[in-house]
Amino acid sequence: MSMQARTLTINQERLQKRIQDLSRIGRIGETGVCRLALSPEDRAGVEQVRLWMDEAGLQTRMDDFGNLIGRLEGRNPDAPLLMVGSHIDSQPYGGRYDGAIGVLGGLEALQTMKEQGIVPEQSVEVVAFCDEEGCRFQKGLFGSRGILGRLEPGELERTDKNGVSRRQALLEFGCDPDRLEASVYPEGSIGAYLELHIEQGPVLDRAGEPVGIVSAISGPLWWTVELTGFAGHAGSVPMNMRQDALLGAAKVIMALNELARLDPAAPTVGTVGHLEVFPDSRNIIPERVRFTVDLRDVDQERRNEREQALREAIELAAMEGGLTYTITEDTNSDPRYCAPWIKDIIREEGRVLGIEARELMSGPFHDALALSYVCDYGMIFVRCKDGISHNPAEFSSFEDVALGTELLYKTVLRMTAAGK
Amino acid sequence: MSMQARTLTINQERLQKRIQDLSRIGRIGETGVCRLALSPEDRAGVEQVRLWMDEAGLQTRMDDFGNLIGRLEGRNPDAPLLMVGSHIDSQPYGGRYDGAIGVLGGLEALQTMKEQGIVPEQSVEVVAFCDEEGCRFQKGLFGSRGILGRLEPGELERTDKNGVSRRQALLEFGCDPDRLEASVYPEGSIGAYLELHIEQGPVLDRAGEPVGIVSAISGPLWWTVELTGFAGHAGSVPMNMRQDALLGAAKVIMALNELARLDPAAPTVGTVGHLEVFPDSRNIIPERVRFTVDLRDVDQERRNEREQALREAIELAAMEGGLTYTITEDTNSDPRYCAPWIKDIIREEGRVLGIEARELMSGPFHDALALSYVCDYGMIFVRCKDGISHNPAEFSSFEDVALGTELLYKTVLRMTAAGK
Repeated sequence: MSMQARTLTINQERLQKRIQDLSRIGRIGETGVCRLALSPEDRAGVEQVRLWMDEAGLQTRMDDFGNLIGRLEGRNPDAPLLMVGSHIDSQPYGGRYDGAIGVLGGLEALQTMKEQGIVPEQSVEVVAFCDEEGCRFQKGLFGSRGILGRLEPGELERTDKNGVSRRQALLEFGCDPDRLEASVYPEGSIGAYLELHIEQGPVLDRAGEPVGIVSAISGPLWWTVELTGFAGHAGSVPMNMRQDALLGAAKVIMALNELARLDPAAPTVGTVGHLEVFPDSRNIIPERVRFTVDLRDVDQERRNEREQALREAIELAAMEGGLTYTITEDTNSDPRYCAPWIKDIIREEGRVLGIEARELMSGPFHDALALSYVCDYGMIFVRCKDGISHNPAEFSSFEDVALGTELLYKTVLRMTAAGK
Repeated sequence: MSMQARTLTINQERLQKRIQDLSRIGRIGETGVCRLALSPEDRAGVEQVRLWMDEAGLQTRMDDFGNLIGRLEGRNPDAPLLMVGSHIDSQPYGGRYDGAIGVLGGLEALQTMKEQGIVPEQSVEVVAFCDEEGCRFQKGLFGSRGILGRLEPGELERTDKNGVSRRQALLEFGCDPDRLEASVYPEGSIGAYLELHIEQGPVLDRAGEPVGIVSAISGPLWWTVELTGFAGHAGSVPMNMRQDALLGAAKVIMALNELARLDPAAPTVGTVGHLEVFPDSRNIIPERVRFTVDLRDVDQERRNEREQALREAIELAAMEGGLTYTITEDTNSDPRYCAPWIKDIIREEGRVLGIEARELMSGPFHDALALSYVCDYGMIFVRCKDGISHNPAEFSSFEDVALGTELLYKTVLRMTAAGK
């Protein structure tokens, strides 16, 4: 990849300043951010971004889901629009880049179009979606699902840890939770969706590459597995008479690891992140172990094969160890693929910038996941230092963010038939 | 093994009634017992057993460690005595047999000698040791270590969960913690020690055998192992870039299991009973796992070999997984072997009763462990249903307890040169 300075069309200094200014709202420590969804800090963030949208000459509004929307009118206002978005709410102990660069990068792209006198064919909207993170009410993608009419029953009654309901929080945020229907986008009105986001993983950083093209958001398969054996004194039950649930769990953990690595070229990942032992005493053989399984792949068929093999490994571990088991499926999401034609545009525009951008899977969710159910979508990833995210240590360089934003800008131009 | 009814010398009905009566003191539920050391229930138990000792015609006293001692004077009162003992304190959620059968069985043996008009060569003492379990002050074998002058500095200042010190508890129990020295047995005054106890493991039950001969109390090697890798999003860190501490722990758990089974004829046991994961979230790769290792063997050299192999397995798992690790040694006890000549007597007397008693290791500690440092000792195990102990479900049949007590009685006769 070329390391020579590139001349960018977007205003890198303005973008950098906005990222820095936004990071001061809800700032924790030197580099951390806490802007919980629908909190006063989130509201202050929305106010700030709205001022910048106004400054850019966009038509600006906040809808009743708490989404902030800036619109650049197209030549053909009836054509399905291009939406560019992400979020500015954060994790309680979060960083400066997750979500924020997608909103400010999208705004920068639209402002640059305005400044360049470019009028897009279809209208383009940049959206700061409300509550992508989901950590306050334990359910995320609120704003992006909201505008698509995809909320589930009872979502407004979910409460945070202080007992505040989302309905109440929306009211305090300045939204009218009884008028949500009016904020839903009519079917067919969104033609495509683009999102710029930090990778939140180490692939680009390890490869030394500034940006990448998302191939798909891989839906996870989430299980809770419980193995049950029989407790006994660690000193007095001979090995061949044991029914040790933790030994069974160890076999499953190793089997999952092997299965996820079966095809070294595949992006399959398998993780046991949570595990608890009962009775969890140093001199008692574990009677019961409960643990989670997280299995992801962009290839649904391969994931199904791995799932089947994992079921067999659990069955075998239980049989060998004299254990019983249950598998509870907590979540089972499909992979959601990015549109090939949008990936092609990003790839081509990357080459113009001197970048051969690789494709990579997104393990985490994004607002794009919600949009994927109604329109074609594409995502650009920006390198993230050591893959650290959801942490004050989260870091992407301003150069990388600017390059990703330039790529987003060029992609928007092509997708709005305005770049030629 | 012969299933025909045996004619026993001991009084089986009396023994059974005493076990039942004692189990009512501190009873919980139908079959459970809670007689915490130095509690009012423990004190009531001591009072009851003291009455029975008096009834048996023994010289009875409680010493200042809280031990209850009943003495049958020998022909030669200056000869080193034979001590027979166990304990009547229990776990908070304990059973009716652990400890109790050793005290009541020892008492039954001495009472039978009295009734049979047998005067032993050396004096014989039956002891209900104070606080074998150690669950109240987190340090057990108090009374048995006490009479040997083997308490550690500060033991009287240890407190229970309510802040009551052992000193205070001893005072309330009727002991004088400032006069402990007077209760210490002079060096050389104890010639040998015998203990009858439930197995607390499943070996005899699975073999269908009522009693067994303990070969040794296997000292455990106790470690705390901590593996440290690097956290990351379960969806975004490729398998080959992970430093998953739980995967490393799984390898160690499996390695320990294999090492303990290496020699199928050996009683080696290895257990990981406690394990905790950080940050313990379903979609985060485990950064740190802390777990315990419990490794026991009657053969110290073999245990050392297994320990070395386990260290190598941890090193390998860390290397493969990009992990760092620490091993903290919490306890490292030697196996304490039973005296061959006492095992021979038990074996021979068993045969007279029509039993071919097997030798088996004791994983758990007993008061015998403390005595092993000052004299030869032997232990008789009684079958324990399903190996369940430290639990209200703990069960040994009265027939088995009576048989074990008869064997104890016959062994005492032989060891006091009174049986011929």
